[in-house]
Amino acid sequence: MNTSPTLWWDAGTGSIRYIEQTLLPGKYRVVECRTVRCLARAIRRLEIRGAPALGVAGAFGVALAACRCRKKDPGAFRADVARDAELLRATRPTAVNLGWGIDRVLGAMNHAPDSETARNLALAEAQAIFLEDTDCCHAIGRHGAALLPAACTVLTHCNAGALACSSWGTALGVIRSAVEGGKDVRVIACETRPLLQGARLTAWELARDDIPVTVITDSMAAHFMRTSRIDAVIVGADRITSDAVFNKIGTYMHAVCARHHGIPFYVAAPLSTFDAVRKAGDVVIEERGREEIAVIGNRTFVPDGVAVKNPAFDATPMNLVTSVITETGIIHPPFDIHSVVRGRTK
Amino acid sequence: MNTSPTLWWDAGTGSIRYIEQTLLPGKYRVVECRTVRCLARAIRRLEIRGAPALGVAGAFGVALAACRCRKKDPGAFRADVARDAELLRATRPTAVNLGWGIDRVLGAMNHAPDSETARNLALAEAQAIFLEDTDCCHAIGRHGAALLPAACTVLTHCNAGALACSSWGTALGVIRSAVEGGKDVRVIACETRPLLQGARLTAWELARDDIPVTVITDSMAAHFMRTSRIDAVIVGADRITSDAVFNKIGTYMHAVCARHHGIPFYVAAPLSTFDAVRKAGDVVIEERGREEIAVIGNRTFVPDGVAVKNPAFDATPMNLVTSVITETGIIHPPFDIHSVVRGRTK
Repeated sequence: MNTSPTLWWDAGTGSIRYIEQTLLPGKYRVVECRTVRCLARAIRRLEIRGAPALGVAGAFGVALAACRCRKKDPGAFRADVARDAELLRATRPTAVNLGWGIDRVLGAMNHAPDSETARNLALAEAQAIFLEDTDCCHAIGRHGAALLPAACTVLTHCNAGALACSSWGTALGVIRSAVEGGKDVRVIACETRPLLQGARLTAWELARDDIPVTVITDSMAAHFMRTSRIDAVIVGADRITSDAVFNKIGTYMHAVCARHHGIPFYVAAPLSTFDAVRKAGDVVIEERGREEIAVIGNRTFVPDGVAVKNPAFDATPMNLVTSVITETGIIHPPFDIHSVVRGRTK
Repeated sequence: MNTSPTLWWDAGTGSIRYIEQTLLPGKYRVVECRTVRCLARAIRRLEIRGAPALGVAGAFGVALAACRCRKKDPGAFRADVARDAELLRATRPTAVNLGWGIDRVLGAMNHAPDSETARNLALAEAQAIFLEDTDCCHAIGRHGAALLPAACTVLTHCNAGALACSSWGTALGVIRSAVEGGKDVRVIACETRPLLQGARLTAWELARDDIPVTVITDSMAAHFMRTSRIDAVIVGADRITSDAVFNKIGTYMHAVCARHHGIPFYVAAPLSTFDAVRKAGDVVIEERGREEIAVIGNRTFVPDGVAVKNPAFDATPMNLVTSVITETGIIHPPFDIHSVVRGRTK
């Protein structure tokens, strides 16, 4: 199984390297990112995306800010790094992991006596987050694989795979671990309009691992739930509050349809995705641009002047979720997010 | 309100003219069709589509076959027309109206003493079907408009509009009639992957009539049902059996989500769409090509070698349908399709 990372720190050049995801599956290109501004642009343009990967990107981003800053004065150094951290934080509002990765690295630098020490602590913390993320995905995979029958068809939405994490994946990590454990898993990948991460990324990475995958439009999911044997839906998450799972737009529709058909609906996510502070109503759902809906390839499909809505995420109330698969085990209803998060911070 | 037809008989040249729908909204082009082979190709390529429009196209197609055939011998004439009729019938398997239009015109020619009379009877019957279809849509619109609140937001899928009929439309006919009657109707048009008839056609024709329309991806419908005020879902139909409504893929998903949110789910269709003979399990759902999913504009989004499924329609069991709006009135549950069809044939 392919285990190359999605983004990583290049110690030789002191820069971040990442797989440019908007070009897949047509082109595989690794981009070098030497400035925080370049990283922020890559995140805004979804060249790097996926909640756990955003956590790692935020962490490496703060480390990059620290490594690039030449200020000797500790106050000026801290101010520069803090400004860069806020630039990164503002790129995407919905996924909680981005801010979580940024804050962990900022926290690690907090008591450094000088900027050189701060740089080293920042980089060490970011590397730790990077490695933990892969470990998390494998642990999520192990726990989740136990939920799947020996032979099954799993429907997934968007890309909660290696490309959304350091490597391995959350939802696709469950599938990879099940396949590695000898289970016969077939995947139905919903294409995931508007940006087609399911068709482009999930299909690409599963095909590379020789895991059987079929792409459908998002609107076909309910039809296949009714007419074929779909054993489970597994998706990732961008933020889990006490009352809802925020994930790629379309997730809620799958949850409603899975419930209607009595199909288990699993969410696979690291504990860094949990947000015990906010309720669903407090979370900002990112509204992205008209062009993502109106234009595909070289063609305009929505008439000029016609309105378009483009929320990037939706909220699935917890009562539609069968279980949440985390690195520490499976969480069953009633979901007590507060104690999960308390357990993490102990 | 725009009332120009979607396809019509050009008596001056003895040909069919139609709006080429795959080019919209970028290009508005009227194509002249002088042969049955050309018409069959236009139907297969979805240059003409929509169940009622297919009924009209089938009818004009048989008339075209009769007008083009120069055979004097009545047997040879009938054989030629029958062969052309079967060519047309085979273009699309799911919509019942195509075969219905073909059979009505074949039936009208049945007892003609000579080929000249047969030609005239065929053309007269096809013209009658064309005119009846517009009358049907206005009657459907009148009946359906009464179901809508004075101010409301209606979600629709695909295009069940003027472009799917002679003119006016079925689902969009209800909306047009409500607007004409002074109601304040806003429309949410689901883009309708893979071929985007919602984004391209529904948005285009509603914008031309100054009816407020917003385009969303299909996967956003449930999110807007949960978070906004959607008062009703109205769709068309390609075939209504005693146990299910066949319509564009994605319709079933909307029906499930509408039920989950307590939103009425209306089907607007002429009686020619009813099929009292078959049950849902007997209906062939057309499976269309891989390219419709994998390629959009000039770009390939599904990796080579990855499987794709592309059913063009799905089946919505009648228990998810609130009412069926026909030209003779509203049908409520329990739906007795047999007596509806018996009423039609009286």
